[in-house]
Amino acid sequence: MRNLRFTISYDGTAYSGFQIQPNADTIQYRLEQAVHMLTGETVKVVSSGRTDAGVHAKAQVINFITTSKIPVERWCLALNSRLPKDIVAHTAEEVPLSFHSRKAAKRKTYCFTIRTARFPDVFHRNYEYHHPTHLNVEAMREALPCLLGEHDFTSFCTVRTDKEVKVRTLYEARLEAEIDDLSLNGGISRLRLYVTGNGFLYNMVRIIAGTLLQIGEGKRASSDMQRILEAQDRSKAGPTAEAMGLMLWKVEY
Amino acid sequence: MRNLRFTISYDGTAYSGFQIQPNADTIQYRLEQAVHMLTGETVKVVSSGRTDAGVHAKAQVINFITTSKIPVERWCLALNSRLPKDIVAHTAEEVPLSFHSRKAAKRKTYCFTIRTARFPDVFHRNYEYHHPTHLNVEAMREALPCLLGEHDFTSFCTVRTDKEVKVRTLYEARLEAEIDDLSLNGGISRLRLYVTGNGFLYNMVRIIAGTLLQIGEGKRASSDMQRILEAQDRSKAGPTAEAMGLMLWKVEY
Repeated sequence: MRNLRFTISYDGTAYSGFQIQPNADTIQYRLEQAVHMLTGETVKVVSSGRTDAGVHAKAQVINFITTSKIPVERWCLALNSRLPKDIVAHTAEEVPLSFHSRKAAKRKTYCFTIRTARFPDVFHRNYEYHHPTHLNVEAMREALPCLLGEHDFTSFCTVRTDKEVKVRTLYEARLEAEIDDLSLNGGISRLRLYVTGNGFLYNMVRIIAGTLLQIGEGKRASSDMQRILEAQDRSKAGPTAEAMGLMLWKVEY
Repeated sequence: MRNLRFTISYDGTAYSGFQIQPNADTIQYRLEQAVHMLTGETVKVVSSGRTDAGVHAKAQVINFITTSKIPVERWCLALNSRLPKDIVAHTAEEVPLSFHSRKAAKRKTYCFTIRTARFPDVFHRNYEYHHPTHLNVEAMREALPCLLGEHDFTSFCTVRTDKEVKVRTLYEARLEAEIDDLSLNGGISRLRLYVTGNGFLYNMVRIIAGTLLQIGEGKRASSDMQRILEAQDRSKAGPTAEAMGLMLWKVEY
């Protein structure tokens, strides 16, 4: 028995999220199907964490136990030729049998991308949320530091969740502005919110992004973020931002 | 009557090229259909040049004559809401009635992108040609300068063409290497061939790219490029590189 760990990327547009579910196309299903095609085995693919329907991954980490003797350096090519073109395995390595890609994850980074130019970027249209009206970037930046550290993030968690402990630690939350000559108008064409933490509640980054957008629009003050956090009440926060803007960026072990 | 000029971008993946043709979905058809939905008029959309099936445009220039009185600043939004999501108008301006986006074009730049990392970049999979084996970038670069200036480019033109004069002037031909952390392996993950000229023959950039790839693979010497150019014989050049890697980058007037 061997435990294999992979870094994979996927375009989540066509999928009902990572986790297998009945009558839906999912990343996990496609991965397990590819392993089955390759080895004949029925494995259970574990990931660093589920991603929702429409959410993408630049570098998701997965692992599974296999009895296959295929050399580790052949696995990515073998899987990629059995996976749809919107899921790609990039690296493979053999790890101790005890390794579990979710339980062992120390830090995860998500990126939420906001296209701020007047019109969408046609080549990124499925990977960013289009917000063509003015955003106060400074106000958005001022709202972020209060989220750093260990907090109960109940306000930023969907009420549809079974996780009882809502305490998580955020190590970083920053908003980067990109200038892109595709915008043709000059100025900021894209904002990227990078959030790094020891773990995330269900919809947590999307609710933070939705709240931050309201602050950028001037519907809320920067200082509201702290008040929302302290309220521990989902109804105080902003809406859940669109899944298409979210990408699992990096997982650290 | 007014002449309106637009900069548009499109993802060519789903289209049989720019130009209208029977029983095929084309960019021109979609543009003319959008104008018809907006104004009721049947216009003829002129572009800076046709792009082939599967070829993309970052900044194509088009124009058409309309009797509509819709203010110019409203046109992009109005068209975009009537266009499929893979075609986007970015800028609009009113130009003299005599302006013709193909005849007036002074310089056009195309970009051909080669993904050189071991595996595809899932988010750019439709916009670059994947070539995972070694390429000699220096040899490729040495082959380019001989193309600059005014030449008969018959060797780099498909035999299926009706253009009799095959003389064109290239102003620039450069190969840029990109490092992308998506490759996860370090090193060059992407090569971009930018070619600027006063005009291009049918398939010209794709045949130059196909020949350049053979030079990078060591199947031909850098000096072959000059010999191929001088032969004025399509059969001497390399294959036509895949359309998906090509993008109309810029048109200058």
